[in-house]
Amino acid sequence: MKHTISVLVENKFGVLARISGLFSGRGFNIDSLAVGETQDPAVSRMTIVVEGDDLVLEQVVKQLNKLIDVIKVIDMKGKERIERELVLIKVSANAKTRSEIMQMVDIFRAKIVDVAHESLTIEITGDESKIHGFFDLMKGFGIKEVARTGKVALLRE
Amino acid sequence: MKHTISVLVENKFGVLARISGLFSGRGFNIDSLAVGETQDPAVSRMTIVVEGDDLVLEQVVKQLNKLIDVIKVIDMKGKERIERELVLIKVSANAKTRSEIMQMVDIFRAKIVDVAHESLTIEITGDESKIHGFFDLMKGFGIKEVARTGKVALLRE
Repeated sequence: MKHTISVLVENKFGVLARISGLFSGRGFNIDSLAVGETQDPAVSRMTIVVEGDDLVLEQVVKQLNKLIDVIKVIDMKGKERIERELVLIKVSANAKTRSEIMQMVDIFRAKIVDVAHESLTIEITGDESKIHGFFDLMKGFGIKEVARTGKVALLRE
Repeated sequence: MKHTISVLVENKFGVLARISGLFSGRGFNIDSLAVGETQDPAVSRMTIVVEGDDLVLEQVVKQLNKLIDVIKVIDMKGKERIERELVLIKVSANAKTRSEIMQMVDIFRAKIVDVAHESLTIEITGDESKIHGFFDLMKGFGIKEVARTGKVALLRE
């Protein structure tokens, strides 16, 4: 099962390596990871998506809680939350295909952020299923490059 | 100086911990990190923002290139690129302040993604200076929670 784990950590040197080491040491592959500062520059939030055994993950969460630089750990699985990801996609485009791609960009409320002779670069945000759907459509045109942020999430109030 | 490093890696177990360990081992604090799959599910792209000595960073990049699971490393500093980040911000809001916040959300082309009795959750994407500007405005209302993806970047063609 996939889990989305949100970890608030002290924004210190080496914390990231320690935490990602904890997951890989237990055999979890990290599907995606997004790390950035919070409203307090001394605190960072890591959002980690992992797939693996629920019981082992429970142990990893316990171990995370014991780390001195970890402030709070939330396993968001099953909780009401808002999830978003941003993806930059560079797609092959020529005079013939450009307008068709632009139509799809409109439908998905994505944005064209760069135009070159033989490509368009598109920014899209959304949850997993929306991004997956858009990817599937773009494959037909030829995806040249992709940069995904990985998922971030906040609990609903 | 801040550097944005893009690393294409084999999507394997432990790679993330090894790479973040390489940076922290050389004394670099990672400002932000975003990891996600590319168009090829066997390959992930890590976008790392670090601040530190240029010469030491050059050595780190050389070491990265030697790692067996690393496919390509690009230091984007000084190169023409498209950079984006997504941020979820939960802001205190009440009947009095809600419409003022909504105006700012419009001006910044952000989106309200959740409404509760005493808060609004906003999604905003952009480059560093846009997000910084929006943060500054939201501070006046009271920022309750923040989840940032960290920056992703693609080179312009």
